[in-house]
Amino acid sequence: MNYKTIEHNDINYLKSIIDHTRVIEKNEISEDYAHDELGTITHMPDVLIRVKSTAEISCIMEYAYKQHIPVVVRGSGTGLVGSCVPIHGGIMLETTEMNQILELDETNLTLTVEPGVLLMDIYEHIEAKGYFYAPDPGEKSATIGGNISTNAGGMRAVKYGVTRQWVRGLEVVLPNGEVVQLGGKVVKDSSGYSIKDLMIGSEGTLGIITKAILKLLPLPKESISLLIPFNNIDEAMDAVPEIINSKVIPTAIEFMEKQTIEFAEEFLGRNFPDKKADAYLLLTFDGTSKEDVDRDYKTVANLCLEELKANDVLIVDTLERKESVWKARGAFLEAIKASTTEMDECDVVVPRQHVAQFIKFTHQIAEDLNMRIPSFGHAGDGNLHIYICRDDLGEAEWNEKLNIAFSKMYNKAKELNGLVSGEHGIGYAKKMYLKNQLKPTQINLMNGIKAAFDQKNILNPGKVCQ
Amino acid sequence: MNYKTIEHNDINYLKSIIDHTRVIEKNEISEDYAHDELGTITHMPDVLIRVKSTAEISCIMEYAYKQHIPVVVRGSGTGLVGSCVPIHGGIMLETTEMNQILELDETNLTLTVEPGVLLMDIYEHIEAKGYFYAPDPGEKSATIGGNISTNAGGMRAVKYGVTRQWVRGLEVVLPNGEVVQLGGKVVKDSSGYSIKDLMIGSEGTLGIITKAILKLLPLPKESISLLIPFNNIDEAMDAVPEIINSKVIPTAIEFMEKQTIEFAEEFLGRNFPDKKADAYLLLTFDGTSKEDVDRDYKTVANLCLEELKANDVLIVDTLERKESVWKARGAFLEAIKASTTEMDECDVVVPRQHVAQFIKFTHQIAEDLNMRIPSFGHAGDGNLHIYICRDDLGEAEWNEKLNIAFSKMYNKAKELNGLVSGEHGIGYAKKMYLKNQLKPTQINLMNGIKAAFDQKNILNPGKVCQ
Repeated sequence: MNYKTIEHNDINYLKSIIDHTRVIEKNEISEDYAHDELGTITHMPDVLIRVKSTAEISCIMEYAYKQHIPVVVRGSGTGLVGSCVPIHGGIMLETTEMNQILELDETNLTLTVEPGVLLMDIYEHIEAKGYFYAPDPGEKSATIGGNISTNAGGMRAVKYGVTRQWVRGLEVVLPNGEVVQLGGKVVKDSSGYSIKDLMIGSEGTLGIITKAILKLLPLPKESISLLIPFNNIDEAMDAVPEIINSKVIPTAIEFMEKQTIEFAEEFLGRNFPDKKADAYLLLTFDGTSKEDVDRDYKTVANLCLEELKANDVLIVDTLERKESVWKARGAFLEAIKASTTEMDECDVVVPRQHVAQFIKFTHQIAEDLNMRIPSFGHAGDGNLHIYICRDDLGEAEWNEKLNIAFSKMYNKAKELNGLVSGEHGIGYAKKMYLKNQLKPTQINLMNGIKAAFDQKNILNPGKVCQ
Repeated sequence: MNYKTIEHNDINYLKSIIDHTRVIEKNEISEDYAHDELGTITHMPDVLIRVKSTAEISCIMEYAYKQHIPVVVRGSGTGLVGSCVPIHGGIMLETTEMNQILELDETNLTLTVEPGVLLMDIYEHIEAKGYFYAPDPGEKSATIGGNISTNAGGMRAVKYGVTRQWVRGLEVVLPNGEVVQLGGKVVKDSSGYSIKDLMIGSEGTLGIITKAILKLLPLPKESISLLIPFNNIDEAMDAVPEIINSKVIPTAIEFMEKQTIEFAEEFLGRNFPDKKADAYLLLTFDGTSKEDVDRDYKTVANLCLEELKANDVLIVDTLERKESVWKARGAFLEAIKASTTEMDECDVVVPRQHVAQFIKFTHQIAEDLNMRIPSFGHAGDGNLHIYICRDDLGEAEWNEKLNIAFSKMYNKAKELNGLVSGEHGIGYAKKMYLKNQLKPTQINLMNGIKAAFDQKNILNPGKVCQ
């Protein structure tokens, strides 16, 4: 790409339109901004700007568009596929100071937020008032802008769907600096092509989200979790379609293996309530009345004990048990990361009856390649999180084995009618797997769309389909 | 547009690849194919083909693409904005013979269907087996392909959202004849730009839907409706935000005025259970247990009687009452149509607290222009159906008054942060209002997307954003 290199006069111009303390020059930028949470892709931006408003972003984009400077937006940097890494340098816009919750509209059941608001702050703000934002990704310190940009999923997708279903409206700055409003507070929209839905999951390549109108629900007053041990992953996974067939829809159906639980115990210095089994399902049920929630969980508990191969059903009801289970579940990614020197991840999604088959396939790869490949994930929606650990492998061997493992996994996902990414996105790291899975026509369509939004290819270039 | 005119050799070619009894030449095509349900836009196709398979559609598109012949897809023709009218002539593909329900997958809770399956046939097929497809547009003889193409909404959108949320995967034939699979049976998808979501609501302009994978839920076992009379539309509408604020989410909140009910009574030759009031809300509640449904409806009934201005609350529980209420609700469109010589419609959606204001605005327009403008609609989601009746107006006066009424209404919707169409789409009839509401940039983006899919502009040209 033939981008303009940032020079002194560009910095001067940016400092003339933005408070200069929020314009950070390259030599003062922390190395953290060169990578995301996983850190497999690295490149420093030439200038970091801590933006505060739509108007600022619009002015910066107008300048970048005229000057042909690449721009990458970053929220909390909790991504895993390099989406927020400025691989061509240029300007990085950090949105974490655009962190205002602008309006809770109780008539329309909407929450209007700036993009840098953290997920945890959304929950705190609305749950106290009796409202519920259903998407529940593991990483609560992610920004809502980042969540929308990757169409984040999370644990409650089994019952409540993914982020896309919870975004009513967006304000977006286009690559040339123009500001557009997409959707709104309204429930229905058949008014032309859904640019809003295109923006959701586009990983910061089509426009910059500067405001979001989220859909809320009344907070389900009751919820309970069940921890269900099984002899092995097969028996645990075989239970999932049967649970779904029982016509009870749990809020979440997570699976975890003993090994992963042990990493979390070590990482947290805290015991998990049960360690006798090789595999566990963790289910949650929620609802408006205790009777309904009780009926649902008892239906599933009886099914698991009587007709399926559960060893036991532990009701996660005491505060202590809740903390020990959910803290472990929340720590899996970091615990696995702490257990190895380096790792990379695979976030495929497959039809839910194929989860066991896929997990066993990764066990076989681990054995064949003599590597550790722990996993956990969302059994209820078929979305797996698989971690390939480097441990003490040398650079060349690591790269070789990683490529073999990834090729096998993504081919397997394709064979099972799965997709490359359930919720982490494509970014930079998964581009080749997306290109392997889709027809060239589909990739061309995506590039055609990208060109329609960003003729000069300045917004997060080199990502997703490029 | 410089399209190829269909000649004898084109017909011969099409008859050589498609069973000739399903290739209908212009002079044998019924006039019905020149228009949709509302009939405001008319143009005959040059050839009508009753397609039976993806492969057939692919071959036809390949030919049309090479020859530069426009192609329009039609389901049941129940649209209201001219989306399926072949304004440039050419080939019309009718999908009603692609009406197979291909698979009910109880493990993934999905239903795979061909595009010509009627909504009523979907309900019948799955409800008997204990499953639920939530979208509930008034017109049950619409095809699912048409529903997806307009992102149809319907009555249950308050609780369950619109068609978009119920489409997991699509098979689509692109304008050049290539077949692509979008999404699948999987619950989550962060694998590149959502071409599937772009296809939904694109009114047959970007690709031809040849298969759809729909999301299902277990059928809510219990449901009950309440018919609530109010002195006037203001008092009825003022109740809606309060009902939402009560943190009970009804399945549907419909509103209707006395005049509309009288049209339906006359049209059906059947009495409505109550006619004393000027305005009514019709609410439905559903759920898995009788206790929950009872608690919800009682909360709302008490609220309406004690704190809001309801005159009464009629529980719609007997079969006779259910039939009289829901048959009337289902007949509103046709009853209004039967009451006049000609009519046109406005399907705006506004934030729900503005519904009363909008309805009163239409009453004022009716008075000012000395016209009848009856309406009904989805109070719970802010989506109004407003019918401007020609009655005995002469052609010139009708057109003049219609334009004035539409301009005022669409401007008002914009002022209230509403959108041009909640669920009927833009098609041909509403293009100018979409262009008035959106920024030129947004229209340009839509045209850029259209060009990325359909460089030769052969698929349903002249619609939506063109």
